[in-house]
Amino acid sequence: MKTTAEILQEAASARTPAATLTAEQKNGALLAMADALEKDAEDILSANRGDVERAKGHISDVMIDRLALDKKRIAGMAEGIRAIARLDDPVGRMLEKRVRPDGLEISRVTVPFGTVAIIYESRPNVTSDAAALCLKSGNVCVLRGGKEAYASACAIVKSMRGALARRGLPETLVNIVEDTSRRSAEELMTARGLVDLLIPRGGAGLIRACVENAKVPCIQTGTGICHIYVDKAADLSKALAIVENAKTSRPSVCNAAEVCLVHKDVAARFLPLLQKRLVGDRIAAGKTPVQLRPDGRAAEIIPGTPAGEGDFDTEFLDYILAVAVVDDVRAAAEHIARHSTGHSEAIVTEDERAAALFLSLVDSAAVYVNASTRFTDGGEFGLGCEMGISTQKLHARGPMGLRELVSYKYIIRGNGHIRV
Amino acid sequence: MKTTAEILQEAASARTPAATLTAEQKNGALLAMADALEKDAEDILSANRGDVERAKGHISDVMIDRLALDKKRIAGMAEGIRAIARLDDPVGRMLEKRVRPDGLEISRVTVPFGTVAIIYESRPNVTSDAAALCLKSGNVCVLRGGKEAYASACAIVKSMRGALARRGLPETLVNIVEDTSRRSAEELMTARGLVDLLIPRGGAGLIRACVENAKVPCIQTGTGICHIYVDKAADLSKALAIVENAKTSRPSVCNAAEVCLVHKDVAARFLPLLQKRLVGDRIAAGKTPVQLRPDGRAAEIIPGTPAGEGDFDTEFLDYILAVAVVDDVRAAAEHIARHSTGHSEAIVTEDERAAALFLSLVDSAAVYVNASTRFTDGGEFGLGCEMGISTQKLHARGPMGLRELVSYKYIIRGNGHIRV
Repeated sequence: MKTTAEILQEAASARTPAATLTAEQKNGALLAMADALEKDAEDILSANRGDVERAKGHISDVMIDRLALDKKRIAGMAEGIRAIARLDDPVGRMLEKRVRPDGLEISRVTVPFGTVAIIYESRPNVTSDAAALCLKSGNVCVLRGGKEAYASACAIVKSMRGALARRGLPETLVNIVEDTSRRSAEELMTARGLVDLLIPRGGAGLIRACVENAKVPCIQTGTGICHIYVDKAADLSKALAIVENAKTSRPSVCNAAEVCLVHKDVAARFLPLLQKRLVGDRIAAGKTPVQLRPDGRAAEIIPGTPAGEGDFDTEFLDYILAVAVVDDVRAAAEHIARHSTGHSEAIVTEDERAAALFLSLVDSAAVYVNASTRFTDGGEFGLGCEMGISTQKLHARGPMGLRELVSYKYIIRGNGHIRV
Repeated sequence: MKTTAEILQEAASARTPAATLTAEQKNGALLAMADALEKDAEDILSANRGDVERAKGHISDVMIDRLALDKKRIAGMAEGIRAIARLDDPVGRMLEKRVRPDGLEISRVTVPFGTVAIIYESRPNVTSDAAALCLKSGNVCVLRGGKEAYASACAIVKSMRGALARRGLPETLVNIVEDTSRRSAEELMTARGLVDLLIPRGGAGLIRACVENAKVPCIQTGTGICHIYVDKAADLSKALAIVENAKTSRPSVCNAAEVCLVHKDVAARFLPLLQKRLVGDRIAAGKTPVQLRPDGRAAEIIPGTPAGEGDFDTEFLDYILAVAVVDDVRAAAEHIARHSTGHSEAIVTEDERAAALFLSLVDSAAVYVNASTRFTDGGEFGLGCEMGISTQKLHARGPMGLRELVSYKYIIRGNGHIRV
């Protein structure tokens, strides 16, 4: 078994080769990796069956479902890699160039970070996605997945490394940590000089641990307590459609809404409609109803389990919606400032001044007017792919695509220039 | 006395007002702050005299010189603020906008970070510079200066806050930490949710402490072990001028060169010329000579104190230059990768292929061809100002101007759009 320190050293020595690959080399390697996954599907599925067997009884059915692979999911992973191959190369892009009156040329050019470590949980497709995004952006990846998915991740990495080797490229462009104990995560968080960027992908606990303990540059991703504010000037039919979509189209994801705030002037009209839409209509249609958790003011209008202390600070990731009545746009923005994770928030209103005020006051990665928070996604935003959704303000905010996986350097050309 | 926690709370409540100031409000406030510093010069000088008296005997003469103010330096601080007022507003800039085929409008707009904490040492002008840069970029600043300069910093902040109040703006846009013990620095480093960005400005120890202990987003600035590599195809007269400029024009700053690497094929010719230029000629001209510290191979050609183990990993900030002979461009790049702090490095060569290889292999914030590393500076790079020089790759690299003091958010406008 290789130690994490050894793997980080191998990754470090691949940084220069990775950074100097041409776009053609990278795209050729990506297509070869995609083909390899499909060719090696039986090996990957066999490893995955072992993971699923071992995990049964230890993790929830939802998690088992995330973990389990089939041919179709492997084809989806391969297709994901091919889509990344089709995107523009993010490395070596000239961001700006100026020539000073004295002839000194100063340009700013994109460069890879170096080694990108990704700590994640049980979804095997993160293994191939992250490896492909890092390779395309000229970065070496060090993958550290959850122990439930370790055999699957190893089989996927083995397949991708085989493809790299067949194309004459170093296998150490893609690395997986062999130690799946807590210790290896801590080693990645503190490997100054060896990890140039750490990206945790997973639940709130993992992300908090990384952000609080990392001594290497780290990007906080993911957790989303997203709000929809229904203004007094809202078109209520739009509001109903947006809240239902944001809550129920995929409740387990970070851009799903967890809280609905309603202006006091429309609460008496809107809340009964909301209850009908999310509970009665859904039951009648054979869909899972939403459990509403009204605050004190909302509870005077609609029934439901009263919202508890923590309900406005919880990422339910489930068919549960906390509901509160607020006085106006400012009060909505203040509620959001206190409770949001800075991911995505929306206002539903036909009043442009209310919309402008909300956009100005709400400090989240994505702020919406009359649209569902579910659009916060690299694909939907036109980035073509996504390494995660940053909820911090340093470097990247919102969906992180290839552009967010590179840094830049200044290149200065003179002819013997000295500073006087 | 206010606690640091109280000051951080006051700063937090000023974040929205700061972010929503117009360019006119900010520029008017900045000009008023500049005028106030000149008007209050006597108070500031009196506080500064106290600082200098208390510091004598405790800190070096160089540090005393950095600490001491006079009317001219105060005028310089005021002029610095006025220059910042003249720059473009970095907030609210549309970075990109796209309209999807379904009509959803997605734009990306610059926004302030919120609260920016700056931990620095004894230079009083950092107080006014940092406050002005933060105000212009819509950020609230929390300043935490060294205890040697505390009275000066308080007098400067008092003067600037007076100007804010006279213009009807909250004084809490500019804040200074009253506790100058180690504890307040630790509080700033760990104030998650209250400090949106931490910028340490000062010596290597301060910066390392911040980077290693910060639980808030932090930018590593400053330390520079900068290299000049003299290639075999170098124009030696350019090389001599560049090395002398990079080493001696201001040895105490981070963009000064600390190491000269010389290709083995030109070492026998170049090193005696270098010794003459940096030692003999300078003595003859009445200038401070440079102490050369040759490695084993260089010592076979020129005399000098042999370079010790740590000499290639030391930011001398003095008239000392470590010198090593290397085999070629790749060996130079490898030496730099092992010893550099990622600040600024230069190659001197007339060979475009050698230059291109050096630019590609060397991963520092600024990489030069035939120019002095001394140009790495916000003013020289055309940014108009500078909050420090980032030596990390996350968010900002090299000189940080106003553009690097803002983040962005996505603004999405729909008409009832839901994700299907």
